Amino acid sequence: MAKTAITPTRNQDFAEWYQQVIIAADLAENSPVRGCMVIKPYGYAIWENIQRIFDAKIKKLGVENAYFPLLIPLEFLSKEAEHIDGFAKECAVITHHRLKKGPDGKLVPDGELQSPYIIRPTSEAIIGNVISKWINTYRDLPLKLNQWCNVMRWEMRPRMFLRTSEFLWQEGHTVFETESEAREDALKMLNTYYDFMTQELALPAIKGEKTPEERFPGAKNTYTLETMTQDGKALQAGTSHYLGQSFSNAFNIKFLGRDNAQHTAYTTSWGISTRLIGGIIMTHADDDGLVLPPAIAPHQVVIIPLIHDASTANQINAYCADVQQALENLDIRTHIDATENSAPNKIWKWIKKGAPIRLEIGLKEVSESKLTLGRRDKPKPEKTFLTLKQLNEIPIILKQIEDTLRQRSIVTRDCCIQAVNSINHLDELFNRDFKGWAVMNKDLTDTPVFAEIAQKYSLSRRCIPQEGYPQNSVFIAKSY
Amino acid sequence: MAKTAITPTRNQDFAEWYQQVIIAADLAENSPVRGCMVIKPYGYAIWENIQRIFDAKIKKLGVENAYFPLLIPLEFLSKEAEHIDGFAKECAVITHHRLKKGPDGKLVPDGELQSPYIIRPTSEAIIGNVISKWINTYRDLPLKLNQWCNVMRWEMRPRMFLRTSEFLWQEGHTVFETESEAREDALKMLNTYYDFMTQELALPAIKGEKTPEERFPGAKNTYTLETMTQDGKALQAGTSHYLGQSFSNAFNIKFLGRDNAQHTAYTTSWGISTRLIGGIIMTHADDDGLVLPPAIAPHQVVIIPLIHDASTANQINAYCADVQQALENLDIRTHIDATENSAPNKIWKWIKKGAPIRLEIGLKEVSESKLTLGRRDKPKPEKTFLTLKQLNEIPIILKQIEDTLRQRSIVTRDCCIQAVNSINHLDELFNRDFKGWAVMNKDLTDTPVFAEIAQKYSLSRRCIPQEGYPQNSVFIAKSY
Repeated sequence: MAKTAITPTRNQDFAEWYQQVIIAADLAENSPVRGCMVIKPYGYAIWENIQRIFDAKIKKLGVENAYFPLLIPLEFLSKEAEHIDGFAKECAVITHHRLKKGPDGKLVPDGELQSPYIIRPTSEAIIGNVISKWINTYRDLPLKLNQWCNVMRWEMRPRMFLRTSEFLWQEGHTVFETESEAREDALKMLNTYYDFMTQELALPAIKGEKTPEERFPGAKNTYTLETMTQDGKALQAGTSHYLGQSFSNAFNIKFLGRDNAQHTAYTTSWGISTRLIGGIIMTHADDDGLVLPPAIAPHQVVIIPLIHDASTANQINAYCADVQQALENLDIRTHIDATENSAPNKIWKWIKKGAPIRLEIGLKEVSESKLTLGRRDKPKPEKTFLTLKQLNEIPIILKQIEDTLRQRSIVTRDCCIQAVNSINHLDELFNRDFKGWAVMNKDLTDTPVFAEIAQKYSLSRRCIPQEGYPQNSVFIAKSY
Repeated sequence: MAKTAITPTRNQDFAEWYQQVIIAADLAENSPVRGCMVIKPYGYAIWENIQRIFDAKIKKLGVENAYFPLLIPLEFLSKEAEHIDGFAKECAVITHHRLKKGPDGKLVPDGELQSPYIIRPTSEAIIGNVISKWINTYRDLPLKLNQWCNVMRWEMRPRMFLRTSEFLWQEGHTVFETESEAREDALKMLNTYYDFMTQELALPAIKGEKTPEERFPGAKNTYTLETMTQDGKALQAGTSHYLGQSFSNAFNIKFLGRDNAQHTAYTTSWGISTRLIGGIIMTHADDDGLVLPPAIAPHQVVIIPLIHDASTANQINAYCADVQQALENLDIRTHIDATENSAPNKIWKWIKKGAPIRLEIGLKEVSESKLTLGRRDKPKPEKTFLTLKQLNEIPIILKQIEDTLRQRSIVTRDCCIQAVNSINHLDELFNRDFKGWAVMNKDLTDTPVFAEIAQKYSLSRRCIPQEGYPQNSVFIAKSY
């Protein structure tokens, strides 16, 4: 068996493999704050690319960024009954606004607040309260806001990127005159996420609607993108909620309509988070480490100078710099690894960090005006030789890599979706330790016997797919 | 007296004028969360421009962005004695991690934490703890990190942008092998801020060093950019701290040196925040509202269609779209105000919102292939007529506007700096309600009699200027 960079492999221990990929790529680490992670520079650069690409998409749709307070007064959260029930068990609560030295000299909380605040787990409540004052007539609608921020949901079983007490996300909040506009917008955002995930992120996402027990607290409909991880589980990668008038009623979001009468508005909300990075790892990474879709790779091309002899260093470095410049002129994010490591160590490093393309440049390449190219989507020994003139092909190769990742992940997904016809069939399937999703008629799952089987195997209803499957189907899977 | 858009004027009531400028430009508003503001889309777009420009500058300097937890364990904060003394009185304290229904049905905190957390007022403590594990040898240095995030310092007397309990900022944290490298870097960041403030933001910033009582808690030296507001006060617009080994000692940031012995590292930190937007308002805005430096204006050019007759609307709108396209090809952020408001209302709106250039386009402009141009740095009636070919001059005019703002603010500043030779002189000056800064020999201010006068007039030592004033001078002023 070939030596791999990550121990254990995916087959040996998927959960531990996931942690090790993150460590080997230097993306993040657990922090001394319970359930919170530190996002290291290479991991954060991926998030910056996600932000940049998605921010441009929503701005094109007329969404404006804003910023609302981190803290939410407790009484706001209570105004929407389902909402508070959904989040009460995972709220960080601020009760004091200063510290003092206690009798033993240790610091203790001081300045108790009359009414506590919670750190936003999501911002429907504070935004609902604030924007109700911004909206007077139908001329103020639609209102389409978004914020990029941190949120906190106290997490007892954290897992880096996938489930952390604090995470970074965007949360869009829109307000409309009519139900149909709001419903349409919730679906439009679902499609915007779908395009982003399936194109730039090459994720095998499936669009669907959540069943009631999986809805966002307070939502009328929750639409979701579910993506399959390589161990056959489901990962909720983004959601878009049609909130109806729940929050408008709770926060008095009313407007003078075209008919000169008062109306209650219809709202939506939608979000994606740093969890997406977890999804990218679990979908594309392999036993040699991270594999990044080119659109979000911090460096799309990494140049590795192969310097065996100090006397040729200048010549090789100059050639590397020329290649970097040529690639940057093509808008390709290019990095030269000028560290002191050995060439094989550098090559392994960038394999583990998932750089889509490595260019190895030594004296041979310089003298022949060539490049030795390694692709992260191909086995490591496989290399291609390009001439300098062929640098123009690099954008095409990056596109090919994206296509490979997308197609590969779709094949993996579709191989692991199994139609089942009965609860017995479902039981048998997961009794055999099936690693994948079952798809079945939803009516069969609206039953106590389904609930029993679901509990037995830790399954849940992931979504009712929007297309590609029989009407009224539902996916059943283990999930992250 | 000419009618002005903002009531009261700067002379009538500067503090109230400031609030009204923010409201008239729709930048922000106070929120229902004590001391916190909502940054509205137009205000946030200014912050996005500040982030984009400054982020590019620090990335060029080799600084990498990362993200560290929002919460800081109480015991971390206590490790640096001055640091905790400086922030203990303004900490938001998290004591519980969930909510439950109390006996009266109301929600109350539940799940008390063994040890409380505070929301970061700044991140030296958490970053110091984490990066101490990243640094093993001198090869791991220098380490240059930055994060864009929210921080919280509980504020009893909030003022939008200038002083709010929560604010947005960047905090840079760097670690070096030697004192001289760290000192050099602290000054390099001071200069980077200076260039940004005096160039793109056209602020009349002065570089200097803080006297001990104004230093960042835990710093050896705090360097500052002080800028003068139009009411003659000082505003600290950014700081860069040489932290020596204070935090390295507290958090055990050690490395194996080139001499194969263990050494303690030297650190710096530096930050600018949404406060800068307050500084921009207080420096450049006038009695008609906001005046934005072009580099950070959400829209550098606003096109106002003058449509008096529906039959010519298409013709005028098409011409406006052509002009917008031509300007965007020149990389100028251009907005067409297609709202239903009347033309005079639109013109006033964009004056109040501080758009650097307004282009009014009606039938006359279309038929003559011309543009009517209004500059925000000139009195409102003053207009210039450009031909379509002269669109290429718009970038030059934007540069001229920036220059005007810069020069005007420097003149205002320099007129309001008064040299004084004695404490008596200082007393007399502020007794006459002087609106400006005094500059005097620092030795005169290291005295109890200075402390008395300072208290009498709410003055403080703002900084020891780096250049342009006699050695050992210090500025004395009221401040925001």
